[in-house]
Amino acid sequence: MLPNRKEIHVEWGDCDPAGIVYFPRFFEYFDACTNALFEAAGFRKAEMLKHYGLLGIPLVEASAQFYAPASFGEMVTVESQIVEWGKSSFRVEHRLYKGTVLSAEGREKRVWTVRDLQSPKGMRGEAIPAEVKARFAQ
Amino acid sequence: MLPNRKEIHVEWGDCDPAGIVYFPRFFEYFDACTNALFEAAGFRKAEMLKHYGLLGIPLVEASAQFYAPASFGEMVTVESQIVEWGKSSFRVEHRLYKGTVLSAEGREKRVWTVRDLQSPKGMRGEAIPAEVKARFAQ
Amino acid sequence: MLPNRKEIHVEWGDCDPAGIVYFPRFFEYFDACTNALFEAAGFRKAEMLKHYGLLGIPLVEASAQFYAPASFGEMVTVESQIVEWGKSSFRVEHRLYKGTVLSAEGREKRVWTVRDLQSPKGMRGEAIPAEVKARFAQ
Amino acid sequence: MLPNRKEIHVEWGDCDPAGIVYFPRFFEYFDACTNALFEAAGFRKAEMLKHYGLLGIPLVEASAQFYAPASFGEMVTVESQIVEWGKSSFRVEHRLYKGTVLSAEGREKRVWTVRDLQSPKGMRGEAIPAEVKARFAQ
Repeated sequence: MLPNRKEIHVEWGDCDPAGIVYFPRFFEYFDACTNALFEAAGFRKAEMLKHYGLLGIPLVEASAQFYAPASFGEMVTVESQIVEWGKSSFRVEHRLYKGTVLSAEGREKRVWTVRDLQSPKGMRGEAIPAEVKARFAQ
Repeated sequence: MLPNRKEIHVEWGDCDPAGIVYFPRFFEYFDACTNALFEAAGFRKAEMLKHYGLLGIPLVEASAQFYAPASFGEMVTVESQIVEWGKSSFRVEHRLYKGTVLSAEGREKRVWTVRDLQSPKGMRGEAIPAEVKARFAQ
Repeated sequence: MLPNRKEIHVEWGDCDPAGIVYFPRFFEYFDACTNALFEAAGFRKAEMLKHYGLLGIPLVEASAQFYAPASFGEMVTVESQIVEWGKSSFRVEHRLYKGTVLSAEGREKRVWTVRDLQSPKGMRGEAIPAEVKARFAQ
Repeated sequence: MLPNRKEIHVEWGDCDPAGIVYFPRFFEYFDACTNALFEAAGFRKAEMLKHYGLLGIPLVEASAQFYAPASFGEMVTVESQIVEWGKSSFRVEHRLYKGTVLSAEGREKRVWTVRDLQSPKGMRGEAIPAEVKARFAQ
């Protein structure tokens, strides 16, 4: 499936008192990378939400492994790819490199989500349109 | 092992355009809860780092499952506990509740870490002192 | 006018590689304090937005002076007060203390804002209801 | 004095429930732009801190005016410049544009800061080296 690559400049404000990226920021990076992956497939998030009446593509699972810390001033590269489509959910994987060193890996399970005021959660999953999935096929 | 409970007020700035907590903020909440757990065991982070010469207790793994979204103005409660001690690493689990509803769960694997300028990572794990582990035993 | 006081525990994740609060986090603290001030006046933000059809109370100006750094593990206290009401805007001032030491001051100018799809900004200010102002009078 | 221009992609995670950039993120953008300005002058932050023994260049004042909101998916451009040098402090100004529209302006007063364990603040300002100032002159 369509891969995407995004370069991210690690900022001072992304780092904690240990001088390394505060780990929740890696999840922010991965989130930005998923959005960039959709944009690469032709779906700019703001327009996609509007077009499909989505609330968003929130996560039901997220995980990461951290192998080598990154610090402010470094440029890292994230390779992202959807690795599985369900009916209303999908999985994304991210690999974050400092040069050739694999620094971190992330996995997300997200749901194609519409607002649903009847639901106790205020939202529910909906079937992902075939045309969306098709755009990520290569 | 010693449990801890922390109340967190979900802020407007923790939420995304879908109006719900932006998922990396849950990892920030969990991080704060791990620090609160250590404080409950008698280890205020700043003093602990100084006393043991630590750089920090950075993560090598983090994961979360999100069951029910939370939104600004809500008060959530997080129950946290260390569930496993390794030689230089340990695992923490967090359960985040909105009232009686389990909203999210988080898991962290962290390493007792000292600075090591010889290491390519600039840091390395070190054995967790028995006295530290003892304070979490009940 | 009605003052409010909010205690904030400075988190590890709020601090930067210098070991002190990363300054944009002070603005997050102040934002949370303005919301707490409204809540003290009887206006929980989520309900207030719904009741008055507001998009929010976004800022048109923000400023802060930083006198003494704060660091993780410290508990700080913020005193907040609305200092001026305009027709559709208002000013809030915040004083952040570490014990008796004034650590930072913040000022905000905010606008009572409704969505307006005709406007190039997508939003516009609207007159603040007299009943809202009245609740802050003492 | 040397100007710098930095493009920033507004992320979903930078935006609040009103769908616009949460204002403390603008201060994060400006902070990143100041670091980029120094880098343009030949001072990569990590190396600069090490070389001059700095703790950082923390702020004593920050202010911003917000004219037009920005939202996720938009690319904004920030123009930054040091506008005044003091002995140990300096002022930076930022103008953030969406296309040709001035969306926000920011001002920072920062101090060339070294660690000082004798000081109650743990830090103190120090004279900015002439060679540093010289690099920003055009």
